[in-house]
Amino acid sequence: MQVRHEKFEVRTSGKGTYEITDEVQAKIDKSGVRNGVVTVFVQHTSCSLTMMENAAPAARRDVERFFEELVPEDANYEHDDEGPDDMPSHIRMVLTRTSESVPIVDGKIQLGTWQGIFLFEHRRAQHRRQVHLTIMGE
Amino acid sequence: MQVRHEKFEVRTSGKGTYEITDEVQAKIDKSGVRNGVVTVFVQHTSCSLTMMENAAPAARRDVERFFEELVPEDANYEHDDEGPDDMPSHIRMVLTRTSESVPIVDGKIQLGTWQGIFLFEHRRAQHRRQVHLTIMGE
Amino acid sequence: MQVRHEKFEVRTSGKGTYEITDEVQAKIDKSGVRNGVVTVFVQHTSCSLTMMENAAPAARRDVERFFEELVPEDANYEHDDEGPDDMPSHIRMVLTRTSESVPIVDGKIQLGTWQGIFLFEHRRAQHRRQVHLTIMGE
Repeated sequence: MQVRHEKFEVRTSGKGTYEITDEVQAKIDKSGVRNGVVTVFVQHTSCSLTMMENAAPAARRDVERFFEELVPEDANYEHDDEGPDDMPSHIRMVLTRTSESVPIVDGKIQLGTWQGIFLFEHRRAQHRRQVHLTIMGE
Repeated sequence: MQVRHEKFEVRTSGKGTYEITDEVQAKIDKSGVRNGVVTVFVQHTSCSLTMMENAAPAARRDVERFFEELVPEDANYEHDDEGPDDMPSHIRMVLTRTSESVPIVDGKIQLGTWQGIFLFEHRRAQHRRQVHLTIMGE
Repeated sequence: MQVRHEKFEVRTSGKGTYEITDEVQAKIDKSGVRNGVVTVFVQHTSCSLTMMENAAPAARRDVERFFEELVPEDANYEHDDEGPDDMPSHIRMVLTRTSESVPIVDGKIQLGTWQGIFLFEHRRAQHRRQVHLTIMGE
């Protein structure tokens, strides 16, 4: 049994979902772990993680639109000194996920047929987002 | 320290919450791991995982009703070619969980008194859902 | 590789977010694990876990207010025998998190600059909440 840490950066260009499945698999390949779990962790409070249907772009747009309406920018937030998209970003992060743990078998991440891992960017401006992977296994 | 993978199938018959706590405990028993963590992972994007109060069926119905109202079927989704319950299923999945990690002590999953682990089915039709467990420990 | 279990109690005095980052780090220090993952697990169905911006109290109040409005107390719940704050507590738990896994490098939990781990209390009365940590690594 071993523990391997890996990091990578995601450059985002505005609100939306960015698939990171390939980057996660590449780091698993590099680690040499064949059998275990990868824990994906985003080190931010204004973006988050989610699993998502990875084949239908329209489905992703519907998810994004749902969050725009559920957590609107113009909701009279008390904390508004960093712009109208700041407070909604924190709430959307709370409603989604920060860590996700996925099995690894024979060196491959065990996602379902239509599953992808996505970074969910909630800010309008460009950002560099840090994703930390911990790969435990043998 | 060892890693054990186990899988089981949940046959669902429409929207609702299906408790899987006993299946998870049975797989821990089979694994022989006495001390560690079980990571529960659902390999789908139209059903999800959640913890829930396991003693009160009315509480479960209230949770299910809440999601019916928060993510309605008739919301004019762009992605609607798989039926009116398809897009809401993806959004409800994003709002709940795909993986959950629970401690194991003395061979027993360490849930609180009222906690159960549930598969949350978001589609109307019957489905066979795959749950993957990774049991790590000693 | 080793597995260490640690527990601590959080005394809550009504609805709100209670930061537990320091307690988690103290237990990691005590465990001697320098390199691995900590899984934080709350053993309840009427409080939950969340990551949150830890520098701006106004942001936390906005998150709390959002959940008060999204899951109101007066929504005509079927399950209402434990008071008006009971059923909303279960729904808010489902919408947030029960377990969260965070990397440990050189003995330090790898949170981002503004990230804190919070217990999110959803009940009005005082409670003693149990948090279970599983620290795996070397």
